[in-house]
Amino acid sequence: MKLKIFFIAVIAAGGLLATTICNAQDELTTQWRKLDPDNTVLMTLPHGKVVIELAPQFSPKHVAQFSKLVKEGFYDKTKFYRVIDGFVAQAGPEDESEKDKSVPTLKIEEEWNTDKNWSFTKVQDNDLFAEQTGFKDGFAVATNPSENKAWLTHCPGILAMARSSTPDSGSSHFYIPNGQAPRYLDRIMTIFGRVVYGMNHIQAIQRTAVIDGEPEVAEKDHTQILKMQLMSNVPKQQKIIIEVESTQGKAFETGLAKRRARENEFFYKKPPPVLDVCQVPVRSRLVNLISSN
Amino acid sequence: MKLKIFFIAVIAAGGLLATTICNAQDELTTQWRKLDPDNTVLMTLPHGKVVIELAPQFSPKHVAQFSKLVKEGFYDKTKFYRVIDGFVAQAGPEDESEKDKSVPTLKIEEEWNTDKNWSFTKVQDNDLFAEQTGFKDGFAVATNPSENKAWLTHCPGILAMARSSTPDSGSSHFYIPNGQAPRYLDRIMTIFGRVVYGMNHIQAIQRTAVIDGEPEVAEKDHTQILKMQLMSNVPKQQKIIIEVESTQGKAFETGLAKRRARENEFFYKKPPPVLDVCQVPVRSRLVNLISSN
Repeated sequence: MKLKIFFIAVIAAGGLLATTICNAQDELTTQWRKLDPDNTVLMTLPHGKVVIELAPQFSPKHVAQFSKLVKEGFYDKTKFYRVIDGFVAQAGPEDESEKDKSVPTLKIEEEWNTDKNWSFTKVQDNDLFAEQTGFKDGFAVATNPSENKAWLTHCPGILAMARSSTPDSGSSHFYIPNGQAPRYLDRIMTIFGRVVYGMNHIQAIQRTAVIDGEPEVAEKDHTQILKMQLMSNVPKQQKIIIEVESTQGKAFETGLAKRRARENEFFYKKPPPVLDVCQVPVRSRLVNLISSN
Repeated sequence: MKLKIFFIAVIAAGGLLATTICNAQDELTTQWRKLDPDNTVLMTLPHGKVVIELAPQFSPKHVAQFSKLVKEGFYDKTKFYRVIDGFVAQAGPEDESEKDKSVPTLKIEEEWNTDKNWSFTKVQDNDLFAEQTGFKDGFAVATNPSENKAWLTHCPGILAMARSSTPDSGSSHFYIPNGQAPRYLDRIMTIFGRVVYGMNHIQAIQRTAVIDGEPEVAEKDHTQILKMQLMSNVPKQQKIIIEVESTQGKAFETGLAKRRARENEFFYKKPPPVLDVCQVPVRSRLVNLISSN
């Protein structure tokens, strides 16, 4: 009996990933969505490439400013200067430099009002941090219907703007959670994107924070962003064309229900029929490395 | 106003890490616990060293067998053959090999009975997956008092035994979650340790699962465990001596209360006064790289 096959097959049945066995069936139903190349970022790190989907529908001002900076090459050669294991990888220009101070601060876009027409794909009621969680346009969201509020939630891999202690102080420094979701930051920070490819490379960024007793990490060893571009500006041969699973519609909802039910025999005792929205995968696929897009 | 300083100082105030500013105060109160070198594992990967604390008090049979295998050099040159981004890194001998089949299967140690004398440091009531969560001996635990049951919970960095679809089939293949906590695996798997140093190196292990459209990862590129030893058997000059924060007593409890309250001005709107047990850090410190231990 093959341990590895069984363990993984079960996880796949639970919806975590597509194995060869499951693909045939999944492909019949899964809906895929193309990313808009004007709202997709290619971040080139020394150890790999990362693709980020921006969210102008949720955080328009942050996306507008970030996109403009990306287009100008603002982030090229900047560094991940604050990287804390199990928390976030944070990057930006040198603090208090002319470059840093040249960027205007932004009004925070931390949540939005919902009305009776607002809809999403619900994942869970009575989540620890919100009345409900779910997905909207591929992004993990949380909502308190009692307040008519919804917000993007701090799952691993989201892109958010750092700020000082005042809410409207974010400008260009950004962070990406690299460990368990720091959801206590929800509704007080602006989330404006998510990693859809290359999260492994985010996790491999050089930590800059050390534990007591460890030597400091020299600044020269901080991970540099070699290049950050809008995908629409990337030369044809270097484009990475990603499609993402649609989180709306029957296929995704059926997947959620299966994931919740855990019907595979591997689950000889059933877990509680609940889902952590940050632990529900939204799949990506690589359409082609060299595209005609 | 220095973005990075502010953002991080606040996080530190929330309890996530010790910065220079906070150390002086923390050191007055934080209780540190030495690890037992006979129940500490040093895993040497090509890209760094990882220290794991074993948990014989919770999963004695799994720790006994795993320790014996480690002592025999069983895991040296084995590979992380199943590594899924945002899920787990899994290692073990070649499937169905003589080496694989030579190891006896173990009765699962997935939870234990609690009685009125059982105690722990409570973190949260009405957690999504359990009636209560907390810490016991540095390990994240969950408990259902209504059932008189408690168990170790699947936070990132725990060490657990893989198995086939039957509960008592684990033997030597192990996994470590590398992303958001897969807590639906609680109570049906045996957790028997946790990473206390080098989680960044676990996160950097070569993924073996690819997304649709990506080329397969060749077996030669799978990350190899160069060596796995009990710390008590590591030559003096190569020992890594870690102490871990005690999760019992007033210092830790005060830290939890502060983390829950989020009193720093950074939190201009307060998050819900709840804590995700898998997002509460239990600190480690490096006593010395070259020890007289």
